[in-house]
Amino acid sequence: MRGVVMYAPGDVRVEDREDPTLVEPTDAIVRLTATCICGSDLWPYRGAEPVDHQPMGHEYVGVVEQAGDGVRDVAVGDFVVGSFWASDNTCEICRSGYQAYCIHRVLMGTIGTQAEKVRVPLADGTLVATPGQPDADLVPSLLAASDVLGTGWFAAVAAQAGPGRTVAVVGDGAVGLMGVLAARELGAERIIAMSRHAERQALARSFGATDIVTERGDAGVAHVRELTGGLGAHSVIEAVGTQESMMQAIHAARPGGHVGFVGVAHGVSLPGEDLFGAGIHLHGGPAPVRRFLPDLVRRIWDREIEPGKVFDLTLPLEDAAEGYRAMDERRAVKVLLTV
Amino acid sequence: MRGVVMYAPGDVRVEDREDPTLVEPTDAIVRLTATCICGSDLWPYRGAEPVDHQPMGHEYVGVVEQAGDGVRDVAVGDFVVGSFWASDNTCEICRSGYQAYCIHRVLMGTIGTQAEKVRVPLADGTLVATPGQPDADLVPSLLAASDVLGTGWFAAVAAQAGPGRTVAVVGDGAVGLMGVLAARELGAERIIAMSRHAERQALARSFGATDIVTERGDAGVAHVRELTGGLGAHSVIEAVGTQESMMQAIHAARPGGHVGFVGVAHGVSLPGEDLFGAGIHLHGGPAPVRRFLPDLVRRIWDREIEPGKVFDLTLPLEDAAEGYRAMDERRAVKVLLTV
Repeated sequence: MRGVVMYAPGDVRVEDREDPTLVEPTDAIVRLTATCICGSDLWPYRGAEPVDHQPMGHEYVGVVEQAGDGVRDVAVGDFVVGSFWASDNTCEICRSGYQAYCIHRVLMGTIGTQAEKVRVPLADGTLVATPGQPDADLVPSLLAASDVLGTGWFAAVAAQAGPGRTVAVVGDGAVGLMGVLAARELGAERIIAMSRHAERQALARSFGATDIVTERGDAGVAHVRELTGGLGAHSVIEAVGTQESMMQAIHAARPGGHVGFVGVAHGVSLPGEDLFGAGIHLHGGPAPVRRFLPDLVRRIWDREIEPGKVFDLTLPLEDAAEGYRAMDERRAVKVLLTV
Repeated sequence: MRGVVMYAPGDVRVEDREDPTLVEPTDAIVRLTATCICGSDLWPYRGAEPVDHQPMGHEYVGVVEQAGDGVRDVAVGDFVVGSFWASDNTCEICRSGYQAYCIHRVLMGTIGTQAEKVRVPLADGTLVATPGQPDADLVPSLLAASDVLGTGWFAAVAAQAGPGRTVAVVGDGAVGLMGVLAARELGAERIIAMSRHAERQALARSFGATDIVTERGDAGVAHVRELTGGLGAHSVIEAVGTQESMMQAIHAARPGGHVGFVGVAHGVSLPGEDLFGAGIHLHGGPAPVRRFLPDLVRRIWDREIEPGKVFDLTLPLEDAAEGYRAMDERRAVKVLLTV
């Protein structure tokens, strides 16, 4: 089969890889319909994380082609969406809603879903089948649920977005935009998107943002405070992962407020004195997407939400390298790869 | 009147200070019955915070001697307990339960309650009157409510201690011990006190600890994990404020667990990658003691709890310097000063 391999930073190739096979009885083989490139794939692409001949990708939708003897809840022929962490969904940690920390978890990114097929471990605990074969226009939205929507949703839940709340969103990438959508769906009263890019601002508004703040850092914090009677936002979604974005998020929240952070942290160091002084709630990390998947799939299937709008460039898998370039140069918010 | 002044690190004196007078109509003058020395007073005593002729103390109980024209809820002659932050208890932040961040807050430590009398700003929003004049044996417990109990209670609430939960407590000082008491009162199933000192271990057990872990750092974390099926504690109370104690607390919690931190942070820097990886909830800072005071006063008045046991040395105000020495040398957990 064909699959994407990152040889080194900046060097992405599509090449022949061995077809996956069932290893454990709980595995399924999924023939992908679509996959995509994640903002977090840009960290190794830009040399901020080591990479060496790594099969890439952790987002995926497709049709089950084979299922191991131990698989009960999905069947050959099912159209499925899965999380970027494979999880058993039965251990104590999974049952508490933290499937990204399942005691048997497997990171799909180590397997690589930017390919024609993928082996999904712990298929029952990882995959969610749609009610039937989806219309083509639903595929991007279902694919978004695999990570960016699930991650933005988790950030909004971690930030306790809800009725009566003002939510600030730090980061205008795909996850930040999905955070805007999630905050709206969760009933937030006011959603402040922090963005300097006109197209991303427009997309944020289309997902439910009520205000735009263009400043960053202390100036951005000051503007959020100005919009919230000097107190700061009730809820802040952090979807970048840098020192500046984390401090911006922490300082933009009011005392007792909630910060949900999902940007993969790189070189971040939080001063304890600042945290002690801020009096906020801080929660984040890799999103337990599986917790939210059944609900998200239903919302998409019923056409209540259209997260697939976040994909602004669609390319065939074979052109993955161009997709990476487009995201790296911020020419695209998020790239869908058709298989 | 007589009052404690810290001239410089290690140099504590009791001297004549001017009697306080009403400044604002919302002020009250309280004649103190007892006050005490806080673990946080040791930071400047040890030179870890700058100090220069500072009136000391922020914990207090006593009798209202004068009340401004604007004071409605406490009256001359009332026995009162107050928080270490004066707060109006009516602003939006106070109403959300974060009185330590009241938009009109005043830090009692800047006024100094290790004295015969103290001016309490925002008396209605700060003080809670007891149902009558307390029996002498209730005074230490009521005094504890002013800070250490209120702070330990907040930490336990922030850590979501409750039925079915295993709570680990990092720090065996007065606040950590009060965290143990709070966790028990909140219904925690198992309470692991982390302590290397035999007397403090005994005190922790008397407050409700079910297990003792004597190791620190990674070894302490490993022991907590061993006691919790490899997963970590549901709830962790951090009551020290150092880099080691914060990391110990974060790593001792399971994914999705809650860390409540109330140790005043000194030189702490939290690696973003660690926080992202841990998947915990983190909440803390100066405790909004006023939120809990009515409930805590009732529990003490009804003799349901006896937090006053945390005082293991009682001295007259005049001997404050010896009290500081005893706490600095860890000869005493917490020193009560009679006035």
